[in-house]
Amino acid sequence: MTVSKAEIRSGAYYDSVVLMQLQRALSALPGVDDAGVVMGTEANKELLVQVGLSTPELQAAGAEDLVIVVAAQDADAAREALDQVDDLLARRRQDAEQDYRPKSLESAAQMMPNARWVLVSVPGRYAAGVTRQALNLGKSVFLYSDNVSVDDENTVKQTAAEKGLMVMGPDCGTAIINGVGLGFANHTRRGSIGIVAASGTGLQQVSARIHQMGGGITHAIGTGGRDLSTSIGAVTARQGLDLLRRDAATQVIVVISKPPSPKVADELVKEARQARKPVIVNFIGHSTASRRVDNVYFATSFDETAELAVQLASSVPSMDSVSDAEIEAFAPTQRYLRGLFSGGTLAYEALLILQDYLPAVYANIPLKDEFRLEDSLVSQEHTIVDLGEDEFTVGRLHPMMDNDLRIRRLEQEASDPEVAVILLDVVLGYGAHPDPASELAPVIAKARAQAEKAGRYLGVVTVVVGTDEDPQDLKAQVEQLQAAGAHVEMSNEVAVRVAGRLVQALLPKSEIPPLKPVDLDVLHQPLAALNVGLETFNDSLIAQEAQVIHVDWRPPAGGDEKLMSILERMKRS
Amino acid sequence: MTVSKAEIRSGAYYDSVVLMQLQRALSALPGVDDAGVVMGTEANKELLVQVGLSTPELQAAGAEDLVIVVAAQDADAAREALDQVDDLLARRRQDAEQDYRPKSLESAAQMMPNARWVLVSVPGRYAAGVTRQALNLGKSVFLYSDNVSVDDENTVKQTAAEKGLMVMGPDCGTAIINGVGLGFANHTRRGSIGIVAASGTGLQQVSARIHQMGGGITHAIGTGGRDLSTSIGAVTARQGLDLLRRDAATQVIVVISKPPSPKVADELVKEARQARKPVIVNFIGHSTASRRVDNVYFATSFDETAELAVQLASSVPSMDSVSDAEIEAFAPTQRYLRGLFSGGTLAYEALLILQDYLPAVYANIPLKDEFRLEDSLVSQEHTIVDLGEDEFTVGRLHPMMDNDLRIRRLEQEASDPEVAVILLDVVLGYGAHPDPASELAPVIAKARAQAEKAGRYLGVVTVVVGTDEDPQDLKAQVEQLQAAGAHVEMSNEVAVRVAGRLVQALLPKSEIPPLKPVDLDVLHQPLAALNVGLETFNDSLIAQEAQVIHVDWRPPAGGDEKLMSILERMKRS
Repeated sequence: MTVSKAEIRSGAYYDSVVLMQLQRALSALPGVDDAGVVMGTEANKELLVQVGLSTPELQAAGAEDLVIVVAAQDADAAREALDQVDDLLARRRQDAEQDYRPKSLESAAQMMPNARWVLVSVPGRYAAGVTRQALNLGKSVFLYSDNVSVDDENTVKQTAAEKGLMVMGPDCGTAIINGVGLGFANHTRRGSIGIVAASGTGLQQVSARIHQMGGGITHAIGTGGRDLSTSIGAVTARQGLDLLRRDAATQVIVVISKPPSPKVADELVKEARQARKPVIVNFIGHSTASRRVDNVYFATSFDETAELAVQLASSVPSMDSVSDAEIEAFAPTQRYLRGLFSGGTLAYEALLILQDYLPAVYANIPLKDEFRLEDSLVSQEHTIVDLGEDEFTVGRLHPMMDNDLRIRRLEQEASDPEVAVILLDVVLGYGAHPDPASELAPVIAKARAQAEKAGRYLGVVTVVVGTDEDPQDLKAQVEQLQAAGAHVEMSNEVAVRVAGRLVQALLPKSEIPPLKPVDLDVLHQPLAALNVGLETFNDSLIAQEAQVIHVDWRPPAGGDEKLMSILERMKRS
Repeated sequence: MTVSKAEIRSGAYYDSVVLMQLQRALSALPGVDDAGVVMGTEANKELLVQVGLSTPELQAAGAEDLVIVVAAQDADAAREALDQVDDLLARRRQDAEQDYRPKSLESAAQMMPNARWVLVSVPGRYAAGVTRQALNLGKSVFLYSDNVSVDDENTVKQTAAEKGLMVMGPDCGTAIINGVGLGFANHTRRGSIGIVAASGTGLQQVSARIHQMGGGITHAIGTGGRDLSTSIGAVTARQGLDLLRRDAATQVIVVISKPPSPKVADELVKEARQARKPVIVNFIGHSTASRRVDNVYFATSFDETAELAVQLASSVPSMDSVSDAEIEAFAPTQRYLRGLFSGGTLAYEALLILQDYLPAVYANIPLKDEFRLEDSLVSQEHTIVDLGEDEFTVGRLHPMMDNDLRIRRLEQEASDPEVAVILLDVVLGYGAHPDPASELAPVIAKARAQAEKAGRYLGVVTVVVGTDEDPQDLKAQVEQLQAAGAHVEMSNEVAVRVAGRLVQALLPKSEIPPLKPVDLDVLHQPLAALNVGLETFNDSLIAQEAQVIHVDWRPPAGGDEKLMSILERMKRS
């Protein structure tokens, strides 16, 4: 019959590696069936009950108490095992203390003044304190610890931002800085893809998949899982994005987070659109209507993210937008887009895509009822009209066959001094007008000339839907429209985005106040770090031939909570 | 000064091509500035006012009246122009009536008994009647007309479905049947991509883009824009999908619709998943959490749809699912999936992906609060546990470093007779356990052996997150896990989908009652059609060298609404 015996130690602090090793050593002792060594939280006590490692006295243990349970073949074996706890702990400590180790972060920092990073993996309740110390020493922090409050996260990130430093975390599992993995990190090829991730295993999965697909990583910056929440406001993600934007070696940027607060997401995407590099955004499982908005690509799965990143890194697409010259040609009165469509679904797609560029677009087939045109015959602000809607086709040919209605409307829109850009579809094929460009091109040319005479510039963007085997002669159609001064695209999406970018450039600018830039040296200098907490992280930096000093950290006041809070208050005042 | 004169003709019917030609002929007369020839709907009258073509008496015209307005340099010129209306109309009729044309659909059908299709483009109020006639003659219908009621659409589609016939439309702009374009259609290369579309210009844009990218089309079936609404229930889309599934030449299927009713969309996607061909679904602008579920791909833009289709057609991926043998090995008690994750975001991605396979998955990090585990230590039905959550890591190493907790839970799950599949992540890299497979593989092997002894089959699916440069020796890790009988994948998504398919196969089946199949001959026979309505559609079939007979259709009872409804009632009774 198995006999369980337990011991509770109050106020004792040991690193979790030590606890795991003690548990394993106890389990291996003669006559011992199983052992448990944990802090006495409710969850841990319940776990002990579940695996048959509980004794009645354990229920008295608190979250700050160390609980040691041994299940043995008899009472003697159990007692003997517990008697060896101190010996086993002492043996462990001896192993670890062969080298000289500084007892405080301050002295470690003096030993390695070029260290720009501090790795913090102490228990959650001590983590914010150690982070503050590191920031005061001018170091950026990789904060692995979890169980850190949102308030503490907010304070340390604000402090960091003011100093031009970063806090990756709390609960930041993974980062790769200048080729060196921090926390849990896969060894990946160096390359041209930079990552900002509010998800440790997400970062690992994407970077490992990138490596497997032949791509490589410049830097991978973790932010902690809550960084993109409203309370934190993506401070670290914004810093990371900005660093990678400025880092010349990074050609493609990946941003990973669980679905963030819509406002925070919105602002981060706005910044990504200014990056002048391809940015792949993966708000995990959060679907977006557009999969690409100019330089920003939206992916939903890790595999897709990695595939896109490798593909874009191997042939970085041109990030050209519409020409500045064209935008400057508009008169100050000109603001609005008017889209006159013959194809209903092309009009609908235009409305969807324009959401990426304009706050509101009115239509006779609006996405939301509040943007329904009061009168389909009269445009309001930005407007898309589907001229093939039932209301226009009673006893009248479809506008793909008869251009009359569209020509009249085009002339009307072009003479409006507030109109900047006109967007048209020209649909070829059987059944359609035999030569639509012959009727539309002269009207476009005339409208543009009249606008010019009135001191305005009229942008005209057209999509031609057709093939080189259509009866209309695709090439001649395109040439006629181009000769009239229209942009001609073969894809509705591309045409709408050109029009969208032109009109978006005329919107009043709304700037997000920038953060103080973090010095690129945090990425570019050979990694040197001070490690406070788990020794395994120290070991893995050594294995990667990075400079590291492990701090022989002990909780302040020997882990006594009351004394600790008094000390903390004294320091702050 | 311009003088406008108008004429109103009641009860007269002319096809809209005739009206357009009359308007152009009037505008070209000497002394005439502009002319309008339209049916007297409110929208049309407003349009006339807007272009300065209105006279006070026009306001009396009703929607069934033909309105003719002429703006001329003087009253004489205007009057003279109006005097020529009958001549101009007669001239037009003469041109058109050179060949013998049957006056009724019935006699046309006798002239061309092999015609399987009737093209209907008469004004909306007559369209359902003509469609019923066609169905009674055993013909499928391409119904271009708009302004047809939902009730009429429903009735004709139900009638068609019962007869194994199709009605594409109403408001169906485009179709390509056996290489021949109906309505508005681009001339595209023949190929291996089939399309079902509830959007005319969507179909045109996608088929034109496919052609531009080097791909080709087998058949493109239009459904009309309302087909995927709840009232219609996707009758035509389901028929189309089923036809293309059975059509050997179609290797990739594209389904296009504006965002449909969620229920209808759900059912259509379920049918698509049974197609055993790649199906690309584009519910225009409707975003989905997954971009691919087994053989079904979700695209949001037309360009992306075309790109995917061409890509998949050039290398059709294997549509293999998990092996039937493995599914048959499960005991009848076995039903549930248990995922034990060390990576939080991998667990989260698993929950997202499993939505494609299972109705509900419980978790300690659930997608919806109703699926939160009552106790993280006890699984319920399908369960995913993130063992790296804060609740498990107080004073305990992360499960990426210490396998103890996971091993205990794995043993517990494996002994549950309701558990069918266990899903695990194994995360390699710096900081992680130096040899996780050496601890996990023996436990997996033992659990599988014990299940076998108890007459069960335990499926174990693992994802290994790592690279060949990781310190753990990726190859050895994979081999140990495979030797223990686990599926091993390098992508979390792929691993989760394997697990999902295994467990989904154990769910009770829910079948959608199938529709009567439409004979593949509607696609495979050389296209032969009867055309009722717009002559331009007749002309374009002739241009494409298809067999066609144009019916010299006139509205019943000369367009007299009351008489018409009496006639209709007499026919039905």
